[in-house]
Amino acid sequence: MDAAIDLSDASKALDLANIRFQLIRLEDTIIFHLIERVQFPLNQTIHVACGVDIGEPTTSLFDWMLREQERLQSLEPILKPLHYPQILHPNTVNVNAQLKDCYIKHILPAACMQTDRGESQENYGSSATCDVMTIQSLSRRIHFGKFVAEAKFQQEMDRSVKLIKDEDRKGIDEAITNAAVEKKVLERLKLKAKTYATDPDLGANESSKVNADAVVVMYKDWVIPRTKEVEVEYLMQR
Amino acid sequence: MDAAIDLSDASKALDLANIRFQLIRLEDTIIFHLIERVQFPLNQTIHVACGVDIGEPTTSLFDWMLREQERLQSLEPILKPLHYPQILHPNTVNVNAQLKDCYIKHILPAACMQTDRGESQENYGSSATCDVMTIQSLSRRIHFGKFVAEAKFQQEMDRSVKLIKDEDRKGIDEAITNAAVEKKVLERLKLKAKTYATDPDLGANESSKVNADAVVVMYKDWVIPRTKEVEVEYLMQR
Repeated sequence: MDAAIDLSDASKALDLANIRFQLIRLEDTIIFHLIERVQFPLNQTIHVACGVDIGEPTTSLFDWMLREQERLQSLEPILKPLHYPQILHPNTVNVNAQLKDCYIKHILPAACMQTDRGESQENYGSSATCDVMTIQSLSRRIHFGKFVAEAKFQQEMDRSVKLIKDEDRKGIDEAITNAAVEKKVLERLKLKAKTYATDPDLGANESSKVNADAVVVMYKDWVIPRTKEVEVEYLMQR
Repeated sequence: MDAAIDLSDASKALDLANIRFQLIRLEDTIIFHLIERVQFPLNQTIHVACGVDIGEPTTSLFDWMLREQERLQSLEPILKPLHYPQILHPNTVNVNAQLKDCYIKHILPAACMQTDRGESQENYGSSATCDVMTIQSLSRRIHFGKFVAEAKFQQEMDRSVKLIKDEDRKGIDEAITNAAVEKKVLERLKLKAKTYATDPDLGANESSKVNADAVVVMYKDWVIPRTKEVEVEYLMQR
């Protein structure tokens, strides 16, 4: 799904204030989807090839759902192609395989820890649908790193070109890292996860709909590092 | 999508405290989906037959997306049929056609009022996807009325049977109406919509992600009356 950013206007798409607004807004989307997902048990079976027999021996129910959902959402046979201006440098950076792996192995089990790690066959379909929404929003967040990288590149052209020419991945990583900003992101996430996971009418009396610490760890250990990977690799292909 | 209620256990499915919990939890789901939807403009074109040419002259992009999405989520060719106990009396009550009509004509335009009533072709697909999620959650909420009705029927069997035999729709409507509870629902909704629509890190400085009054009106004018319709008609078919 497209983010709400206006990609038809190159100057807006690379305005850092605009990008920042979108990244912060995407946090809400990710938390909403994760909250919806964890009302169901972990249902690990849906992530195992042939765990649910869908007639394809190497495909899990989740893989099938993701593929069919993306086929549906791409609307390729239906909508006329949109003409976006060339905003990003042509690149092949895509970390979706790694994202899927850590979502299934780490992010989801941690998020479901305090709710239910069991199985509920009658929610296989709903769980897979929520997984698709969640992983799509995470993917959007992470690959937004390309816009961040491009905007930073254009702001500091000389320094960036030197680092790229030297293939100095570590130097690029340092140049795009801002520890204070990252700390602030994690604090904001915790506050958001707590707020959105609590029925304001019940307040502290209610059990939280999602484990806020798991949301923070998800960003700290997976979302932020993967986003930086995307930024570095995008710049290396520039 | 199935609600998280355990339909495999008839006693839980008809426990009024359980039903109440699910109805309150569904409020969050509905608000989350609506918040996601209204980040895009109204994009009325996607609700008009042939507004977007999908090769079927009487089908809108939204209709096509809803149909394909439900086909995908039903997983019919894939999952073995689940055996639920017979909880509800057999019935044909379904108000989805009316729901779709009022969603497109009233609910969505009101929700998009303060954001953007325009068009953004590049978000047609995303808007339709969010519309499907929102209308599905509304439909679940409204048709949950059948469980409410069944539970109330079993609690007050004699009185219910008399009203049903007399075909006293007005009497049934009065019997299931609790003005104090409805007032409380609307107050809670307003609080939830305000809370979830506000970035807690920015607080009052941020423009709200959704118009809380539109959420309240949606429930007051459409969700609650349609739910009661479902309850009354379900009982009339009993």
